[in-house]
Amino acid sequence: MPGTSLDQHRDRYAQRTEGMRASAIRALFAVANRPEVVSLAGGMPYLQSLPLDGLAEEFGQLVAKDGLVALQYGSGQGIPELREQICQVMALEGIKAHPDDVVVTVGSQMALDLTTRIFCDPGDVILAEAPSYVGALGTFSAYQAQVVHVAMDDDGLIPEALVAAIEQCRAAGRRVKLLYTIPNFQNPAGVTLSEARRPVIAEICRSAGVTVLEDNPYGLLGFDSTMRRAIRADDPDNVIYLGSFSKTFAPGLRVGWALAPHAVREKLVLANESTTLNPPVFNQMAISRYLATFDWQSQIKAYRQTYLERRDAMLGALAAHMPEGTTWTVPDGGFYVWVTLPEGFDSAAMLPRAVSARVAYVPGTAFYADQLGSRQLRLSYCFPTPERIVEGVRRLAGVLDGELEVMRTFGTGATRAVRGPQSPSPDTA
Amino acid sequence: MPGTSLDQHRDRYAQRTEGMRASAIRALFAVANRPEVVSLAGGMPYLQSLPLDGLAEEFGQLVAKDGLVALQYGSGQGIPELREQICQVMALEGIKAHPDDVVVTVGSQMALDLTTRIFCDPGDVILAEAPSYVGALGTFSAYQAQVVHVAMDDDGLIPEALVAAIEQCRAAGRRVKLLYTIPNFQNPAGVTLSEARRPVIAEICRSAGVTVLEDNPYGLLGFDSTMRRAIRADDPDNVIYLGSFSKTFAPGLRVGWALAPHAVREKLVLANESTTLNPPVFNQMAISRYLATFDWQSQIKAYRQTYLERRDAMLGALAAHMPEGTTWTVPDGGFYVWVTLPEGFDSAAMLPRAVSARVAYVPGTAFYADQLGSRQLRLSYCFPTPERIVEGVRRLAGVLDGELEVMRTFGTGATRAVRGPQSPSPDTA
Repeated sequence: MPGTSLDQHRDRYAQRTEGMRASAIRALFAVANRPEVVSLAGGMPYLQSLPLDGLAEEFGQLVAKDGLVALQYGSGQGIPELREQICQVMALEGIKAHPDDVVVTVGSQMALDLTTRIFCDPGDVILAEAPSYVGALGTFSAYQAQVVHVAMDDDGLIPEALVAAIEQCRAAGRRVKLLYTIPNFQNPAGVTLSEARRPVIAEICRSAGVTVLEDNPYGLLGFDSTMRRAIRADDPDNVIYLGSFSKTFAPGLRVGWALAPHAVREKLVLANESTTLNPPVFNQMAISRYLATFDWQSQIKAYRQTYLERRDAMLGALAAHMPEGTTWTVPDGGFYVWVTLPEGFDSAAMLPRAVSARVAYVPGTAFYADQLGSRQLRLSYCFPTPERIVEGVRRLAGVLDGELEVMRTFGTGATRAVRGPQSPSPDTA
Repeated sequence: MPGTSLDQHRDRYAQRTEGMRASAIRALFAVANRPEVVSLAGGMPYLQSLPLDGLAEEFGQLVAKDGLVALQYGSGQGIPELREQICQVMALEGIKAHPDDVVVTVGSQMALDLTTRIFCDPGDVILAEAPSYVGALGTFSAYQAQVVHVAMDDDGLIPEALVAAIEQCRAAGRRVKLLYTIPNFQNPAGVTLSEARRPVIAEICRSAGVTVLEDNPYGLLGFDSTMRRAIRADDPDNVIYLGSFSKTFAPGLRVGWALAPHAVREKLVLANESTTLNPPVFNQMAISRYLATFDWQSQIKAYRQTYLERRDAMLGALAAHMPEGTTWTVPDGGFYVWVTLPEGFDSAAMLPRAVSARVAYVPGTAFYADQLGSRQLRLSYCFPTPERIVEGVRRLAGVLDGELEVMRTFGTGATRAVRGPQSPSPDTA
C-alpha cells in the first residue's frame, strides 16, 4: 500500500537527497489546476495558435516515411540537421556557432542539469539573479551547489553587485563556478539585461574565471522588434548558452539545447549519453521538419502578439485593482510579471486563501535559495485569456484587500504609499 | 574553431568528470556504421516489423485531436494512463503493482541515472554481474560509485559469490548500496538467472540491507513461452524494477520506467523533475495509444521469432567457423551472445583489424569496471539479417584465424581444446 510502510531504504540514500524536497506548494497546485481556478502560476505556452492539423500531417509522414530512423536509437549529441537549424535560430541573436558545438537535450532543463553535473562539486557556488528560475535552483540544490544571489534593477543584473558577490565568495574561501543568468524577460522578474551591461557582465566573469551559463528560453518572445544580442554572441569561449523549443514551439516534445565551448561540449555529450543514451530521435526529427516546412518565424510573431495582449490585460488589471503599496515589473517580453506586495504581506502564507478565492500564483520565496521573497509573487500571463487574467487579478486584489483589513484590525504590517511599476528588488530592506 | 583552443574551463570541472571518459572504441564505431561493415556491435532492435503505416495514422491523430495536451508540459511522474498500462505489462511477469509507484523516464537509462543519483555517494559500492551492461557501468562511474563484479554461471548470478562479495566489501569498510542485475538474457552475457536462484538472491540482499536494482529490458523477448517471474514479483519492498519500451516497441521515443517502493518513488519523481521537468508527454501518449490500439503482444511475438532466427543463424555460424578454443553462451532470448576467445587473444586490440575486415563487435573490456574481459567480446544478432550475421561471423573467424597464425609464428598465446557453448566466466584464471 503506497505511503503506509516505513522506508527501509532511508539509511541508504545519497547525501544529495537531503537537498531534494517536495515543494510545499505542490499539493496546492493540484487544486489550482481545477478549471474554476484562474491559474496565474504556471509557465505553460498558449498552444492554441499552433497549426495542429498541419503538424498532424507532418508527424504522420515522419513515421510513415522515416520511421525506421525516427523510432531507432540515435546520437548522444543530437541529429545533425536539427543542430544546423538550431544555429540558424541562434543567429537571430547574433550568435555565430558551429553545429559541432551544439548538444541537443531533453528540454533545456536537462542541459541545466548536465552543466551543473559537469561543473559543480558539493559546496561550489553558483551566482544567480535575485530572484531566479525555481527549476534551476532545484537542480543546483540536487548537486549540492550553493546559490549566491546577485541583485537586479530595471536593467537586469547589476555589475557592481556581481563583482561584490564574487569578491565576498572568494574572501570566504568559496569556489565560484558559474554565473547563471536569464538575460531576456527574466523568469520570474520579467526584466531584461540592458545592452550596455552585457559585455560588462561577460568581462567580469571572464576575468574572474567564472563560466557564464546564459539561459535564454524567451529571447525570441520580445514585444518589440528589437533583436537582443546574446551574451554568447561576443564571448564564445566563456559562455554556455541554453536554448529551448518549449516556449517558441511546444514543450511536450522536450527539446532544448546547449551551445558550449568545444571542450565543455565534449563533456556534455558524455553526460547526455550516460543519462539518456540519446535524446528522442522522433522528437528531434519532428522539430527539424517543423522548422524546415512551416513558417516558424510567423508562428513566433503570433505567439508574441498573443502574449503582448495578455501582458497588457494583466498590467491594466494590476493598475486598476492592486491596493496601494503594491508594485510590479513591466516585462518587454516573455511570460511573467513580478509583484511586490506592501509590507506585512506573506505571499506563501496567503496562497491557500488565494486558491480558495479561485486564483493561483507562485509565491516569491520559490525563486530564492535564501528565504527572501516573502512579499513577492510571480504572475504569469502566458496561458489564460485576457478576460481570465483580468478576473484573476481582480480575485487576487480581493484577497489582498481582505488581508489588509485583517492587518489593519490587528495592527500588523504597514503599507507604503507607492503603487505601480517598480524594480524587482526583494524585501531586503 | 572547434578543437583548436586550450580548455580554459579545465580547472572548473567537478571531480566526477574524471570518471567520464569517451570510449576508446567510439571513433571506431563511426567507421563500423558504414553499410559495408556487418555490425554485430549495437543493440538496435529490428524495427522493420513495426506497423509503420498504422503508427503514422495514430501519431497524426494524436496531434490533431489531443495536440494541446500532447504538446504541453506534463507531470513529472508520467501520465496516469501509461502508468496503468505499464502495470499491465509488468503483470505478465507476475508483478502486482499500483500505478502510483511507477515513474516514467526518458528510457530506462534515465531511471538508472536517477536511481544512482538517489542512492550513491562517491565511493559507495554497486554490485553488478561480471560482465555487466556498459551503459550502467558508465552511469555508476559518473556518480563516482565503485562497481564490484559478482561471478555468473549458466544459471546467472551465483548466490555464494554474491554473499562473498558483500562480506568482502563490508570487511573493507565499504558501503554496499545496490545490486544491479539483469536477470533475463543478460547484456552482454546472454544468460538468465534461474528460477530457483531468484528468491535466494532477493533474500541475500534483503537481509544485507542492499537494494536490488532489477533491470529487465529483454524479459518479454524470450524464445520459449516460459514466463520468467520478476525478482520484484516476490519482493516489492526491496526491489527497484526498471522496464523499457525500447526493445519491445521502439527506442526512438525514449520511454522507460521505474517501479519502486513508495518512498523511493517519491525521490525518483523529484529527481525526474529536477532533470527534465517531465518526460515528453507526446511520447508517453503515443505509446499509450499504441498499447491501447494495436495488438502489441503479437508484435512482441513477431520480434521474438525474428530474433530466434537470428540467434540460430549466429550460433550455427559460430559452430561452423570459430577456431578451436573459442566458447560462447547460448541465450534463450534477448539480443546477445558472449564469446570467449582462446588464450592469447585481445579482443580490444583486435577490433581495428576486424573493422578493416568489415565486421564489428564490442570488446569484452567494455563490460567490466576492472579491466577484465580482454579475451571476451559481445556479438549482437538483433539487427542484421541472418545472411549478414553468417557473413559477419565468417569475417570474424577469418580475423581470428589470421591472429592465430601470427601467434603461432611468434609463439604467443595458446589455444584450449574446447570449442562451443560455455558459461560466461571471464578470463580470471
